[in-house]
Amino acid sequence: MQLRTVSILGVGLLGGSIGLAIKQQISSCRVNGYGHKRETLNSAVRRGAIDQAFDDPADAVGGADLVILCTPVGVFPDILRGIAPAVGNALLTDVGSTKRTVVALAEKLLPSPGRFVGSHPMAGSEKRGIEFARADLCNGATCIVTPTDRTDPQAAADIESFWKMLGMRTIRLSPADHDARMAQISHLPHALAAILVAAADNDALQVAGKGFLDVTRIAAGDGALWRDILIDNRDNMRECISRLKSELDKLGDLLEPSRGEELRVVLDEAGRRRSRLIGENEGGKGG
Amino acid sequence: MQLRTVSILGVGLLGGSIGLAIKQQISSCRVNGYGHKRETLNSAVRRGAIDQAFDDPADAVGGADLVILCTPVGVFPDILRGIAPAVGNALLTDVGSTKRTVVALAEKLLPSPGRFVGSHPMAGSEKRGIEFARADLCNGATCIVTPTDRTDPQAAADIESFWKMLGMRTIRLSPADHDARMAQISHLPHALAAILVAAADNDALQVAGKGFLDVTRIAAGDGALWRDILIDNRDNMRECISRLKSELDKLGDLLEPSRGEELRVVLDEAGRRRSRLIGENEGGKGG
Repeated sequence: MQLRTVSILGVGLLGGSIGLAIKQQISSCRVNGYGHKRETLNSAVRRGAIDQAFDDPADAVGGADLVILCTPVGVFPDILRGIAPAVGNALLTDVGSTKRTVVALAEKLLPSPGRFVGSHPMAGSEKRGIEFARADLCNGATCIVTPTDRTDPQAAADIESFWKMLGMRTIRLSPADHDARMAQISHLPHALAAILVAAADNDALQVAGKGFLDVTRIAAGDGALWRDILIDNRDNMRECISRLKSELDKLGDLLEPSRGEELRVVLDEAGRRRSRLIGENEGGKGG
Repeated sequence: MQLRTVSILGVGLLGGSIGLAIKQQISSCRVNGYGHKRETLNSAVRRGAIDQAFDDPADAVGGADLVILCTPVGVFPDILRGIAPAVGNALLTDVGSTKRTVVALAEKLLPSPGRFVGSHPMAGSEKRGIEFARADLCNGATCIVTPTDRTDPQAAADIESFWKMLGMRTIRLSPADHDARMAQISHLPHALAAILVAAADNDALQVAGKGFLDVTRIAAGDGALWRDILIDNRDNMRECISRLKSELDKLGDLLEPSRGEELRVVLDEAGRRRSRLIGENEGGKGG
C-alpha cells in the first residue's frame, strides 16, 4: 500500500498526533484534515499535523488512499453518510473506543464494506485537543484491529501495516471480543474512578493521597466522550457491574477476622497478577 | 521537646526512613532500633537508619525520649505489653494505617496513656523493606495525628512538632474520623484495585493499558499488611461497600441512551472534583 494522500476526519489529540506521525514517517504524503471548528483546523495546519483543511468531510476524502475517522463516535453516522459517495476505493478505519456499533454502521453505510477495518489505537491521555498532539503519541502502544468476515483480507493487512508504521503493535480481535475486554480493563475502571471521586465525602477528600489520585486518574477524561463509550458498551458494562457487585459481596464476607488468611491470599494473588502484567505489557500506553 | 534518644520499633521502609530523617535533622540524636529479623537490623545499622540494634523491644526503649511503633499492627499487643514496664515517661506514637484499635490498645496497655499519640504518616510506596528507606520519604506528605480526650495536650503538640521536623504537614482527627475517611480514600480504593485485577479475565488483561495499570497500582501492596488494615476497619469498609454497590446500581440505570445527559454530568463533575483535588493536595504523597 502506497500512501500518497491520507484524510483525517477530526483533528483532536489523536487525529492530530496521527497526522504528525504520518508526516514524520512519509514526508511526501499529503494529509487532508476535516474538523467542524475552523480554529482547530487552523491550529492543525499551523502545527503541521495536516497540509490542508476542509470543512466538509466529503471534500476531505476526495482522492485519499486512506481515510481515518477520528471524530467522536456520536457523529459517525453523519460523517459516514456524508463521505460514502466520495470515498471511492479508499481504505478506511477509525479510532473509536468501542467497535461493534461503529463497524456495523460502517459496513452498512459505506459502498464497499470490505474496505473498512475498525481500529482502536490505545494511545491517549487525560489531555485533549490538537494542542497536545505529538508525533510519538502512538509509538510503543497497542492497536486493536477488528476485521469481520465481510472485511477484505488485504484491507485488514494494510491497516495493520499502517499502525505498525506508526510504531504500534497490533492485535486482532472481533468487534464483540474487543468490546467485552475493554469493558473489563478500561470502561468499568473508568466508571469506577468517577464513582469513587463522586461518592467520597469532602472531609475524606481532604486527606486523599497519592494512592487515591492514582486510582482516580482516568476519571479526569472528557465526560461526553466517556458517556458515548459507556452507553455504547452498556450490555458489557452491566455484566461487569453485576460481577463487581458479587465480588464486593465476597470481599465483605472475607472481612471477618476468622477469614483473614483467605483475604490475604486474594490480596497477594492480585498483587502478583498485576506484577506479571507490568512485565508483559511494559511500554504499553493509553487504554 | 529535646530528642536525645529515639527508639524505632520495626525498621522496614517507614521505620528506616524515619530513622534516616532523624539522623539528618538532629545528628546528635541516638536512634535505637528493634526488629525481629537480625538481617533487617544489620541492614538498618549499615544504612545509618539506626545506631544500635536490639532484639528485645523493652531493651530498645530504655532511656528513649520518643518511641515510634513501626511494626505491623498485628504485633502491637505483644510489643505494647513488652515495652510497658520500660517506657518510663517517654512520648509514644505509631505509624499504623488504622487508628481506633491501636489507640485504644495503647491507652489500655501503657502505664501513662496520656503520653501516647496515634499517628498516620501518609508516606510510603508499593515497595517495602529497609532497602528502599530514604531520608525524604515523609518530606512533603501529610501526617494525621489522632489525640483523644485522654491524651496529654503537650504530648500531642510534641508529636506534631516531630512530624513537622520531618517535613510533614499535620492534621488532627479523632481515631474514628480517621478510620472513616481512610476507608473511603484509601482502604476501599485498595480493595477495589485488587478486585479489579482478580476479576478480570486473562484475555482482557492481555490488552490492559496505562489506564488499567494506574487504577490498579495500589493493588501491588503487601497482602498481610492490607488484610490487617481492611479487617481492622471492617465496619467502615462494609459501609463503603454498601454505598459503592448503590452507586453501581445508579450507574447501571444511567447507561440508558435516554439518560446520557445525566451520565455526562456525573462524569464531568467527577473529573472536575478530581482536578480540584490535585490543586489542593499537590505534593501530597502516600496514603
